[in-house]
Formats: sequence, structure tokens, C-alpha cells
Amino acid sequence: MTVEVWADVVCPWCRLGHAYLEQALERFDHSDDVTVVWRSFELDPLAPRQREGTLTDHLVAKLGRDPQEIHELNGMIVARGCEVGVDFRFDEAQPGNTFDAHRLLHLAADRGLAAELVDRLYAGYFTEGRPIGDSSTLEDLATEVGLDGTEVRAVLQSDRYADRVRQDEAEARELQVSGVPFFVFDRRLAASGAQPADVLLAGLQQAWDSRAPAS
Amino acid sequence: MTVEVWADVVCPWCRLGHAYLEQALERFDHSDDVTVVWRSFELDPLAPRQREGTLTDHLVAKLGRDPQEIHELNGMIVARGCEVGVDFRFDEAQPGNTFDAHRLLHLAADRGLAAELVDRLYAGYFTEGRPIGDSSTLEDLATEVGLDGTEVRAVLQSDRYADRVRQDEAEARELQVSGVPFFVFDRRLAASGAQPADVLLAGLQQAWDSRAPAS
Repeated sequence: MTVEVWADVVCPWCRLGHAYLEQALERFDHSDDVTVVWRSFELDPLAPRQREGTLTDHLVAKLGRDPQEIHELNGMIVARGCEVGVDFRFDEAQPGNTFDAHRLLHLAADRGLAAELVDRLYAGYFTEGRPIGDSSTLEDLATEVGLDGTEVRAVLQSDRYADRVRQDEAEARELQVSGVPFFVFDRRLAASGAQPADVLLAGLQQAWDSRAPAS
Repeated sequence: MTVEVWADVVCPWCRLGHAYLEQALERFDHSDDVTVVWRSFELDPLAPRQREGTLTDHLVAKLGRDPQEIHELNGMIVARGCEVGVDFRFDEAQPGNTFDAHRLLHLAADRGLAAELVDRLYAGYFTEGRPIGDSSTLEDLATEVGLDGTEVRAVLQSDRYADRVRQDEAEARELQVSGVPFFVFDRRLAASGAQPADVLLAGLQQAWDSRAPAS
């Protein structure tokens, strides 16, 4: 059974949803029979490769309202992250375009390393302040999880996997995905948003119980 | 206390989240002290005013995959709608651009009729097959809930409230809203996605319990 997860690597709600899904899978009796499939979704396809300053700088400057409000809203995400062992450091995060990150995730999927690269990209962006749109950063993170450096560079220097990213995004639109994270269980049942582990576990169970008998 | 809801009138997950919020408010001890504020979010700002055919036609034609798969995914939303008394009829829905619907919602908010118009627009689009981007349809729906026809036409024929829509959307981006529906309780606590009533009720309760003492 598959669980498809449309998400973006700069989306804190996706990072939380990823953790909630892991919790749900730990509690699911048939998790060995579940394959999690990363599907691409760019929150901001027009983002520059790398933004000036940190995410917090960017939010404060662009929003033009009380920095304390932004801090408090981020604080809420930080608190949720803390509960699931995710260290969100928005003061250090360096946002940017995620198209190349998504292309590398498709390469990683072909090499059986998607789960590892998802984790590495999330940690790099949210915790370590690595610039998510920067090619050499992406190359470092991808090779750290075991991808071949030559192959990674070949992808980054071409448009390889661009069609896979765009195909995922086209499907998201057609499936009425209204935001990420977005979960589809067994291609039949969907859940929108960073739903708690209980809800995701119920989705897993319901999809499992109602799947077609093996032919 | 406020609950701000970023949403779009053509988003089935938003419609479900709206119902879940209503359920949560029915169970919340202080719901008389809660003001729900509609915030604008266009899922597809570049959508044409009115698409050819129904939503289902559009999805089948554009996706180019088994219509049964689309039907099943829609069926899941339909089933959830049924549980909360919402009759989703995607075979009849006539999608289109929602910018004018959002402008009218801001007019309705100024006249104390936002809740009524939200409900009317959702029903018109999801259940009655009314073309959501069509001016005369919007005028009909808005006057049905008690808005003044002359005022409604004046808004539709101008760019009044456009700045309010764009301001909501700018805030959504800055608040790291990764999709809709998106709930913010008391400007401090957030929930992403069509979260179940239990989760929204917990958000209401937590925001209430932790709000600043009255000065």
C-alpha cells in the first residue's frame, strides 16, 4: 500500500506532518507493507534561488507588522516541533527556490534514498540554516545521504527530473489539493494539512481495511 | 477572541474545515465570545472567470488518467461531506476565478453578513452548480443574503476591496500558510488543513486558556 505525500521542503507544516506520519506508521500494524512516496509541490515556484537574509528577516521586512506577532506564530510551530523532536530555527533559515531540491528527491527515489534525502533536506533547511536553493548546498546534502556526487551534479546542471516535478504538481492541482502537506492513502483516501498522528493512523487503517482483495 | 480562517470558496477541504469549525464552536463553552473572520486565499489566482464544462469534465480532460480514480478521490470528499451535511456535486460544479467572490466577502464583512455569504457561496458552488466566477451569479447570491443590490453591483463593476483580498493573501504568505483551510486562533495559535473538530476545539480551548488577561 502506498502513502503519497505532497509536500515542500521549506514548509514547516509539511515537516510537522512528516513527523506525524512517522508516529502513525510506528503505531500501524502493517507499516512494513506501506511505501511512502514523496510528491513534489512548490509553495512558491517563483521564489528566487536564494533570498537575502534569513526567513525571519524576510518576514519582518515584508509583513511590516509587529515582529512579536510573527515571533509568536513561529513560536507555535516551534512548540509543535519540539513535541516531535524537530528543532525549527526560523531565525537562521535561508529560504529560496525548491525546484532543484524536488528534482534531487526524484533522483533519490530512483536510487532508493528518498526517505533519507527528505530528512536531510528538512534538517538542513529548518535546523542548520543551509540555503535550500543553493546548488553546492544541495550537492553536499544529497551526497551525505549516499547519492553519487557525479550523478547529483549532472542532475543539477541539467533539467533532468523537471518533468517529474511538474507532473506531481499537475496531479496535485487536478486532485483538488488545496495545500500541503497532503496525504493520499492507497490512491483512494486523502487527508489535507498537518493532521495529527491519530487522524493519519485512522486513514492508514481505513485504507488498509477497504483495499481491494489481491487478485 | 477571533478565529481567522484563510480559505477559498472553491476548495472542498475548506468547506469541510468550515463545517468542522462549526462543530467545534458548538461544543466550545465560550463560542459567544468568538468572532470568525474570513480571510481571502485564491487557490488559483490565474483561473479564467469561468471554465468550460463542469469540474469533473475539467479534471478528467486535464488529468488524462482513469476517470474512476478521480471519481474515487472525489468520492472520499463526498463521503466526508455527507457526514457533516454538505452535498458535494462535483459533476455539476462550475469552477472559475474567485477574486470577485472574495471581494464581495469583504463587503459582506463590513455589513455584518460575512457568515451568511460564505455559506451561500459554498452552497451555490458545491451543491447548486452555480458558476462561481460569473458576475450576475455572484450578484444573485450576495443579494439573497441581504446585501444591497446597488452596492453589490458597484463593487463588482469596480476594483473595490481588491486591496483587502491582496492584503489577506500577502499575510498568508508571510505567516507561512502552506495551504487552506488555515485557522489562526486569537492571532497566536494556528492549525493547517481540514482538521477534525476535536483538533479545532483543542485550538479554541488552548487559545482561550492562554489569552492575555484583560487590561
